[in-house]
This record gives sequence, structure tokens and C-alpha cells, in this order.
Amino acid sequence: MNETRRDKLLTTYRDGLLNDTLPFWLTHAVDREHGGIMTSVHQDGSIVDTDKGIWQQGRFAWLMGEIFNNVEKRSDWLGEAERTIAFLDQHGFDRSDGRMWFHVTRDGQPIRKRRYAFSESFAAIAYGELAQATGGQRYAEIARELFLRFVQHKPEPKFTDVRPTRGIGVPMITINTAQQLRDSIDLPEANQWIDQAIDTIRQYHVHEDIQCVMETVSPDGKRLDHFDGRLLNPGHAIEGAWFILWEGRYRQDQELIQLGCQMLDWMWQRGWDNEYGGMLYFVDVNRLPVQEYWHDMKFWWPQNETIIATLLAFAITGDPKYEAWHQQIHNYAYKHFPDTSHGEWFGYLHRDGRVSSPLKGNLWKGPFHFPRMQLTCWKILESLCPSSSHEPHQAAVDPSI
Amino acid sequence: MNETRRDKLLTTYRDGLLNDTLPFWLTHAVDREHGGIMTSVHQDGSIVDTDKGIWQQGRFAWLMGEIFNNVEKRSDWLGEAERTIAFLDQHGFDRSDGRMWFHVTRDGQPIRKRRYAFSESFAAIAYGELAQATGGQRYAEIARELFLRFVQHKPEPKFTDVRPTRGIGVPMITINTAQQLRDSIDLPEANQWIDQAIDTIRQYHVHEDIQCVMETVSPDGKRLDHFDGRLLNPGHAIEGAWFILWEGRYRQDQELIQLGCQMLDWMWQRGWDNEYGGMLYFVDVNRLPVQEYWHDMKFWWPQNETIIATLLAFAITGDPKYEAWHQQIHNYAYKHFPDTSHGEWFGYLHRDGRVSSPLKGNLWKGPFHFPRMQLTCWKILESLCPSSSHEPHQAAVDPSI
Repeated sequence: MNETRRDKLLTTYRDGLLNDTLPFWLTHAVDREHGGIMTSVHQDGSIVDTDKGIWQQGRFAWLMGEIFNNVEKRSDWLGEAERTIAFLDQHGFDRSDGRMWFHVTRDGQPIRKRRYAFSESFAAIAYGELAQATGGQRYAEIARELFLRFVQHKPEPKFTDVRPTRGIGVPMITINTAQQLRDSIDLPEANQWIDQAIDTIRQYHVHEDIQCVMETVSPDGKRLDHFDGRLLNPGHAIEGAWFILWEGRYRQDQELIQLGCQMLDWMWQRGWDNEYGGMLYFVDVNRLPVQEYWHDMKFWWPQNETIIATLLAFAITGDPKYEAWHQQIHNYAYKHFPDTSHGEWFGYLHRDGRVSSPLKGNLWKGPFHFPRMQLTCWKILESLCPSSSHEPHQAAVDPSI
Repeated sequence: MNETRRDKLLTTYRDGLLNDTLPFWLTHAVDREHGGIMTSVHQDGSIVDTDKGIWQQGRFAWLMGEIFNNVEKRSDWLGEAERTIAFLDQHGFDRSDGRMWFHVTRDGQPIRKRRYAFSESFAAIAYGELAQATGGQRYAEIARELFLRFVQHKPEPKFTDVRPTRGIGVPMITINTAQQLRDSIDLPEANQWIDQAIDTIRQYHVHEDIQCVMETVSPDGKRLDHFDGRLLNPGHAIEGAWFILWEGRYRQDQELIQLGCQMLDWMWQRGWDNEYGGMLYFVDVNRLPVQEYWHDMKFWWPQNETIIATLLAFAITGDPKYEAWHQQIHNYAYKHFPDTSHGEWFGYLHRDGRVSSPLKGNLWKGPFHFPRMQLTCWKILESLCPSSSHEPHQAAVDPSI
């Protein structure tokens, strides 16, 4: 990567984060009255639903803690993290069973709990950052407890036991959550859980014979020839790929790097839209029609994760293929997703790039995938030696980002 | 409506049903090996998933029984109804609690049960038709029992009790199910349940002040200013409108006819896409963005229900507005949905009419809304006096269709 392009990209990500994405959410989403944030915001930042997603509280508190710990020790950033964690402390938990809610009212009354425990995983990394930022032992204890709750959680079944399945979501998020907590609170069990999660993905979800990362398989990793079993989520698998690449770089483990690159290579081929560009949401492993209605839309986050994965793969391997792919997905995304009127990114485009919904956020989209991409890519680019003598394998990057 | 247009439309619906829709499903979907039907079919009729939806078994058995009882006493049609009911008898029920499944394997092993009881309502009308066709007392008893299970069902809550809601779905389907069973098995409680369901819709869902039929409201009918509470499903409300129009015609009750017309008028204004034509899937009551990703797609069934509602409103009232609307939605739908290569209709179009998924069926789309529209409109048109002296209020239509 030449120096000009590196500097230009670095500026795009860093300044985008600091001067656009953060101000957008800090201006519009923060709830000074009841605490936490409201993420259901219209194009211009006005609130269209005051309800609060618990995922988004954890993710926002994580983001503020992460930039406090790794960008600049700004007390206002730490204050936002503390303020949001206080809302989680007070309203995030069902006292009857210790589980976390998924959806609460503006003042924190519970609306919905879900079968699975991703609220816990996102809260865990938030408490972890706050522990790191403040040295608060209570935060560290809660972070570890939430992590263990997440990895040990057995969701109530949605289906009978006639056709049991396993999904890639939990092992993927286990890797990233453990990586975060290894960095923030030095989680003792981190490596063990990461090893186990990567083994699970490799053993059951990485299907060499058809060069594909399967989203949902039978408990012993067999493909299921039904709608749900054939459904691929390329952006999700690519997110998993970069978590593994990250681990490979951290451990200087070539096998992990190879695994991550393989997953990225395969799922780029499956998910890239040759007609309009960008990553499709869902595709069928046998190229049959998909049952989900929004299969061919362009969501923001698969683009974010693919931008990270391709840049990280390039930073680690120096393979020009990844630089080219990164340029391709970066250019596509920055052409179609930014809202030039009010800042931040749209979340939901039609296949051809037209805006389907002007929402900047809802229960699902909040200050997470996009700012995480900006921060991660900024830091990856900082680690890249700007000269042509760049030795990609040696890049020393702060593993916490 | 002039005679030429009436005859042309009648032919379109009748011949479409008998020469296209029925052959499509009878050729491709019927499972001669395990019974019932497989509805997950590709554009050309090939099976892409062998799993079976229980809704679709009931709906198909109802359709075959309905045409046997009301079109022609063809033993092959009755045979299809009996064959499919036999699959439901054997595989549709959870013996542990008497509830019906939602999704089973090809050979009838249960995959999923849902919180709500629409499997029961669709099975009820199927057993009812078979009772009428055969005089079988057991079928009639099961039909009545399933109806009572449906109307008395209390679903397990998905949400906490912080913000309770009521939806229009159950009262709507109650009306239609009771109408069907009044006709097929002379259900004794039919009128009482219909009255109660219409009262519920009028009292809680029909909001005169903003001229709108609300899909989801608080238990006492208040609007909820959140994504779910603001979400309108115009095609669904219009389906409800024609169930009420049907009842108004059956009872010669002007108040019911007025209510049905009002619901249709309001929701046509809310749902009609002035830019591309057709009924949108979801719109927000305050014209804010909707959280559901597929909000602006064109699904087949809202078009089907709107075609029925506008034609029925015209047949009852003679108001030329409804003839014009019927022509508008009919022309739109017949321009975009039919598959000229393999027959039947596509189910899922983008807003501008491009095909999003070539699937002819899945767990949700099967032989129901489209053939029901063809049958119902055919019979409505038969009832229309073709001369200019047509007295719309007097149209004598077999109320069973």
C-alpha cells in the first residue's frame, strides 16, 4: 500500500470516527434524563422510538471505554461509559434469574428477554473496558461473570429435538469477547475459550470440500439440506474470519492466519455482489432461493466487517489481493452508505444501493459495527510501515483494538 | 361494470384457478409418498425444501374441499382433501398437549410449534369442508374442537407485562374461520364469535380520529408510539375489511357494510404505492421509517386480498370508486406477479416490481391467498348482474365462497 493511500485511508477512518460518528451518537442518542442511550434515530438524529436495546447499551459503553483506554484519556468519554454502565447496572438485569434483558423502556422497565445471551456478551466487554479504565474491581468481576454466563448459557429450545443444529454465532462472539476481556481485565480463561471456539468453527463450520463457512450445521457438522441449513451469511462468517486473523497475529500463529484467510477468501466469493458491488446479506450454499425476504439487501455491518477483514488480512500477509479487495469494498461502501446531509451511515440499502430506510439506528443498528470498523482500521493502518519496505508479518499492532 | 369487462375478469379468475394455479400445485406439491403437500417450490415447481408447513396442509385441504363443495363434485379434488387431512390427522398434532405443530419434516416428524394457534384455525376450516363433503361426523367434531381451541388459545407471552398489546390477527381470522364453519358444519357458535370479533376490531383497532385501522394497540385500544405500535399492515387490514363486508352482505347489515368500506377506504390510502403501484407491505402510521427490512416490498397476498376487497365492495355497494380501485390493483398485480414461464405467481417483488425471489412457495406461501382470490372473485362476478340494470345490493351470492 503506498503511503498516500495509507494516509488518506487512515484519515478517513480516524476523522470519520472522531468528527462524524462519535458526535452523531453523542449529540442525538445520549439520554441525559434516564441514562444510557436511545438508538432508534431518524436520518437527522431525531428519536423515533424511545425504547432501549440492551445490546446497544453494552456496545456503546464498550466503545467509549475502548477509545478512552486506547485513543485518549478523555474524561468525557469515560463519563459516557460510566453513565451507560450505570443504566445497565440498574435496568439491564432480571433480578429473578440474573439474566439480562434485550429490550427495555426509556426508563428501564423490561419489555423483552431473549432465549440467547448476547446482551451478556456485549455487557461483558463494556464492564471490562470500564474496569481497565478505572481499576474498579467490581467492574472486572461483573465482566468475568457475564462472560461465563454467556459461554455457559444454554438457550431454551425454539425447535424440537428432531433436527438439532449448531450455529456459528456463539463461538464467533466467544472469540471476540474473550479477546477483549484478555486485553481489558486479563481474563484468565481467555485463551482456553478462544481455542475451544476456534476448534468448534474449524471442526464444524469450515467445510473444505465445498470451500464454504456454514452458518448452521448439525451438531456433528453435517450440512442440512433445508432453507435454514443452506443459508449463508457471508458478512457474519467474514467477521468470524477477522476475529481468527486477529488471534493469529496476536499469537504469531500461521495456522490461524491461514484459517482466517481461507474463511475470508471463500466467503468473499460467496457474498460479493458481482452485479452491484458490496456484500449481499444472505445467499444459499447451492445458489437456490433463500426464504428470508431481505436476502439481497445491503446492510451496513457486513460491509464494515469485510472492510476490517480485508485490511487486516493485507496487514498480516502483505498479499496484494487483500489490498485490492479492501479497496473494492471500501470504495463501494463509502460511495453508498454515508449520509452526506446528516452524517453517519445509512443502515439498509436495496441491492442496487438505493436507500431502503433512512433510519440511522434502531434496536439492531447503533454505535458499534461502523465506529468499531473506523477505530480498528485506523489502528491497523497506523501499524503499517508506510514505506515500500513494509514487512507485513512483523506489524506490531496494539492487540487491544 | 360492463358485461365485457365482467366476463373477461371472470374468465381470468376462473380459468386461472382451474388451468394454472390448481395444476401447478397438484403437479408439483403433492407428496404421494408421505402424504400432504410440500410447498417450498422453486420457480419451475422443483422442490427446494421437503419440510412441510402445517398451515399449508390445512389451507390446501380447505381449498380442495371448498372447490369440491362449491365448484364441482370431482372425486380427485375430494381425494386430495382427504389425503391431506390424513397427514394432518397423523402428524399435525402434539399428543402431549393437543396443540398443533407449525413445521414438520417430510415424513411428519415435528420441528416447531409456535406460541399462537393459526395452525388450528386453518386445520379447522379444512376439517369443516371435509365434513360437508363427506357427511363425516368425526370431521365436523374435530373442526369445531379446533375452532374452539383457536379462539380460546392464550399464547405464551413473548414480552413482559410492562407494555401489553392486542393484535388484529386473531379477531380477523376468527371472523373468517367462523364464517367458513357456519357454512360447512353449521357451527352453532359462529355468529356469536363473529359478533365478538367484529366488536373487538371496531372498538380497539378502528381509529376514526386518524382514519386508520391499527394493527397493534394497547389492551384498551390506545395507540403505542413505538415501532411495533405504529406499524400498519394495510393488506392485512384490508383482508379484515372484506371479511366484515362478507358478513355485512350475508346479514344484509348496512352498518357492517359501512364499517368494511371504511376500513378498506382508509387502508387503501395508507397502503397504495403512488409511485410504483400495488400495496406496500408495511407503513408507519405517522409516516416515520419502519424497522422491518422488507417494509417496501410487494408481497403477493396483500394484492390478493385487496383485489377481493375492492371487487366485493363494488358488488355490494355499486360505488364506481371500488370498480376503479379494483381495476387499478388487478391490473397492477396481473402485470407484475404472474410467472409467464412456469405459471402461478411470484410471491416476493421489490417495490418497483422486480422479482426478489423466484420461489413459488415456502413455509408461508402456498396454495391459499392466490387461489382463494381467484375462486372468490369468480363467484362474486358470477353474482353480478351483467346488465346495466344491476342492483348491487340485491346480488345473491352463495355465502359459502
